Amino acid sequence: MRLSKFHLATVKEVPADAEIASHQLMLRAGMIRKLASGLYTWSPLGLRVMRKVEQVVREEMVRAGAVEMLMPSVQPRELWEESGRWEKFGGQLLKMKDRKEQDYCYGPTHEEVVTDFARNELKSYKQLPLNFFQIQTKFRDEIRPRFGVMRAREFLMKDAYSFHLTPESLCETYDAMYEAYSRIFTRLGLAFRAVDADTGAIGGSASHEFQVLAEAGEDALAFSDASPYAANIEKAEALAPAGERPAPLAALMRVDTPTQRSIDEVTAFLGVPANQVLKTILVRGREGLVALCLRGDHELNEVKAAHLPELPGESELASEADILAATGTRPGFIGPVGLPTSIPVIVDRSAALLADFVCGGNQEGMHYTGANWERDARIDRVADLRNVVDGDLSPDGKGHIRLGRGIEVGHIFQLGQKYAEAMGAGVLDDQGKMRTMYMGCYGVGVSRIVAAAIEQRHDDAGIIWPEAMAPWRVAVCIINPKNDPAVAEAAESLYQALSQAGIDTVLDDRGLRPGPMFADMELIGIPHRVVVSGRGLEAGTFEYRARTDTEARNVTREALFTLLG
Amino acid sequence: MRLSKFHLATVKEVPADAEIASHQLMLRAGMIRKLASGLYTWSPLGLRVMRKVEQVVREEMVRAGAVEMLMPSVQPRELWEESGRWEKFGGQLLKMKDRKEQDYCYGPTHEEVVTDFARNELKSYKQLPLNFFQIQTKFRDEIRPRFGVMRAREFLMKDAYSFHLTPESLCETYDAMYEAYSRIFTRLGLAFRAVDADTGAIGGSASHEFQVLAEAGEDALAFSDASPYAANIEKAEALAPAGERPAPLAALMRVDTPTQRSIDEVTAFLGVPANQVLKTILVRGREGLVALCLRGDHELNEVKAAHLPELPGESELASEADILAATGTRPGFIGPVGLPTSIPVIVDRSAALLADFVCGGNQEGMHYTGANWERDARIDRVADLRNVVDGDLSPDGKGHIRLGRGIEVGHIFQLGQKYAEAMGAGVLDDQGKMRTMYMGCYGVGVSRIVAAAIEQRHDDAGIIWPEAMAPWRVAVCIINPKNDPAVAEAAESLYQALSQAGIDTVLDDRGLRPGPMFADMELIGIPHRVVVSGRGLEAGTFEYRARTDTEARNVTREALFTLLG
Repeated sequence: MRLSKFHLATVKEVPADAEIASHQLMLRAGMIRKLASGLYTWSPLGLRVMRKVEQVVREEMVRAGAVEMLMPSVQPRELWEESGRWEKFGGQLLKMKDRKEQDYCYGPTHEEVVTDFARNELKSYKQLPLNFFQIQTKFRDEIRPRFGVMRAREFLMKDAYSFHLTPESLCETYDAMYEAYSRIFTRLGLAFRAVDADTGAIGGSASHEFQVLAEAGEDALAFSDASPYAANIEKAEALAPAGERPAPLAALMRVDTPTQRSIDEVTAFLGVPANQVLKTILVRGREGLVALCLRGDHELNEVKAAHLPELPGESELASEADILAATGTRPGFIGPVGLPTSIPVIVDRSAALLADFVCGGNQEGMHYTGANWERDARIDRVADLRNVVDGDLSPDGKGHIRLGRGIEVGHIFQLGQKYAEAMGAGVLDDQGKMRTMYMGCYGVGVSRIVAAAIEQRHDDAGIIWPEAMAPWRVAVCIINPKNDPAVAEAAESLYQALSQAGIDTVLDDRGLRPGPMFADMELIGIPHRVVVSGRGLEAGTFEYRARTDTEARNVTREALFTLLG
Repeated sequence: MRLSKFHLATVKEVPADAEIASHQLMLRAGMIRKLASGLYTWSPLGLRVMRKVEQVVREEMVRAGAVEMLMPSVQPRELWEESGRWEKFGGQLLKMKDRKEQDYCYGPTHEEVVTDFARNELKSYKQLPLNFFQIQTKFRDEIRPRFGVMRAREFLMKDAYSFHLTPESLCETYDAMYEAYSRIFTRLGLAFRAVDADTGAIGGSASHEFQVLAEAGEDALAFSDASPYAANIEKAEALAPAGERPAPLAALMRVDTPTQRSIDEVTAFLGVPANQVLKTILVRGREGLVALCLRGDHELNEVKAAHLPELPGESELASEADILAATGTRPGFIGPVGLPTSIPVIVDRSAALLADFVCGGNQEGMHYTGANWERDARIDRVADLRNVVDGDLSPDGKGHIRLGRGIEVGHIFQLGQKYAEAMGAGVLDDQGKMRTMYMGCYGVGVSRIVAAAIEQRHDDAGIIWPEAMAPWRVAVCIINPKNDPAVAEAAESLYQALSQAGIDTVLDDRGLRPGPMFADMELIGIPHRVVVSGRGLEAGTFEYRARTDTEARNVTREALFTLLG
């Protein structure tokens, strides 16, 4: 591509309403332009990048045995009534009426349509398993669209839906998709993690999110520094430190803590570290109150607590009145020693390893020191109650936990029979019996990947594309072409040779001065820059600089082809 | 592709609601499935064909210098208010409100959005000319969607929009698009014509439609049998037959035609051919009535008549009362001889060459024979007033006119300044002066091409794809694979070899009997069928049949590769 025939329109100013780096850089590079809230036009530059992502996604889906199809974006209300989501999907569903006053929506996802397709097309188990995918425009009417294409309303998505006779077959395809997604993000050159995730509104049994790691990510992640283990903070299993609980050494002692209620106040007042103080939280149980005990330096994970059998499926703090009624004291002074036996004591794994700890005395203005489990306080159950913290042991036994943030770019689900049952999608098995199919669904946010990659890979000068996503791998820049035809000719010849070698190259023949030209190439993130100048021609070299290099260097033509080959 | 891993679902029954061949065959071949009125899912088979069309379109657009971009499908009302089309576009515009009660539409076309993009992005004449294109989903809320994807509501379109400083530059790009479109349809292997067309609702100055020729087409076309000349019937110029008007031989005679009013009645009664009878039609002029004279065997073209300076811009027949008042007689007996001089006599080119003709006598129950222009009747103007007929001279002087029907699959327009002016899209010229841009727009109905090709190319057995559009060029069919592993192995090896030679091949490994297998391959229109059987293996040959052949023949492996290469 010759840049003089292309529409490149970079912008110097940082746009005022762009909050994160990827949004700012996509606007400055001229990759996208806003049409309306959450609606973006992809310029020729932006589309080149998105098409490269799209092609990698398509190739890996096909390699994994999926077949491509294309469903309409406009979907009739009737199907959404069948699945029960016409109302339940909420405000994100953009609804409309056609000229005959029939109700439709702009598809935010295609479970209903594909299940309808499958129930009409699939008759026999012999046709299974099948995995259909499409790369298609979706619309979700976000309350607050922001961050450019990261959270746009109209976006490009790859969605796939698989159909199976058995849960085992579903698992096989799910695993194949897990592998395909891993290959996609590896090929795209992105640091990512596959994260065990909640199934949320889509429903179903198992689910993994694929997260591109980036500081601006919306999701808090825990991952191992020595294995592929990763999970959302809400789901990451917290292990106790290695080793056994020490034997009690200290005697149980009452200490006055007249106004010290919080962990910070108690540790400061008594001069003990927070990891030697027990935090006791009273929550509403199925019957009466329940005590949850954690180390003072740990945070309660409410999702985990809500799964305790003693709790009613959610984790709600007890009111001060309830606490007073049940224990005779106020919050801030509660502890397991001498707690009424009607209140179950559930202890986090790490807290269960404490010995000689500090805890509330169940009396206003009083704590215990030298408290010990069993000897002084009962444990009704040990459970994983807390959020993981940096440095925890990884639950897969390999390495330690690190915390970070991620941007969700892919999500795979085992839907089970949820949609197939609601919509009556079955096939005949080998006994001639009708069987409801099992389904999986597998999404990739194609347009979002573009923004996520920029969040992960940029510097002050602009975007740093991985090779697989760059609009062009190589930029050939011409210095002073008008006054030096030999330079223009040499650049043209180099451009032709690179292109013929299958290297995706752009020729910057716009005639800009070196400063603005180089700034543009850095801003739009071209991985390799080659400068053709009069001085270089005399020396028989080109000036080469990788986007990630700090210095340019002079290389011969042969060396250049070796570098780029 | 191995068909056992693909989802092929052909259907035997002709669907009841499918009226035309392409709709029937696309459903029977399982290329599309109806989701709702005018909404179709493209199955894997259908999408393979559409993607091939899309790719040819993309390649030719890029070759012609256009750059690809992507605009949102959902568009804000404000832009459509600016162009004045929010109301004017009519019921085809699918409107919707988002959760904030803002008005949007699903884009049926993108003049507004691209003009908005251009007015923000383009500042200087140096950036021009530019031609942006996208391949994107559109929606038009047709009153009566029908014929499958031929007139669907949601469809895939390639739309391009060019921007220029001058009308000359617009003409250059328009010509380049004309050539690109010609290459597209030639590469796709379709018989087509580029037709001079009305600009209609889109507006602008010049326009051509690209029509795929097919009997089921909605548009009546006239085209030369010896040149590329083609036009819609409404616009096709009708020439007079070669030669001069003969000198008068007969005397003007009154004949009684008591009840003979129509051309058919008069010719039967008098025993003269229709092309010797003059038909005189009185229409409303700007002032009083106007007489339009045509040969009895010709039809008035109302579009041409409406352009006459004597008419008020439309062609409306005079009422019987007006005719009686102006001529003293009734319709059926009107003629130019002795017509009041207040009524201009406008004569079609062919009618102007008549001599010794029959015409109405301007008196009830009376005609003239032996009438002659100049001697008996005045001619105020000779004009092209009629529809062309089969056998007319082609207006470009090459060959004769043939009539046929076409399906519009492409349309190019010179929009001029219509949208740029309404929306204030200008650039600075080399004098620093703001100049409104000139625009062209260029559409291809990508999904419609698939149906149009089938209309043009099918037989009783199914679709006959041109090579460039076929889902696969070659089908390798296996006879009796289960009982004859050598056959399965030979077929697999042939399939691999063909694929590696870059020949798009499908292996029919479904294990069907020959009858249903061959019927499927014919129905889905694969251009080349190769059968691997035990008998063939013994003889060292494969059975080959082109889709258009009547008989199969045995060929060696070498001959096969030569055939398909």
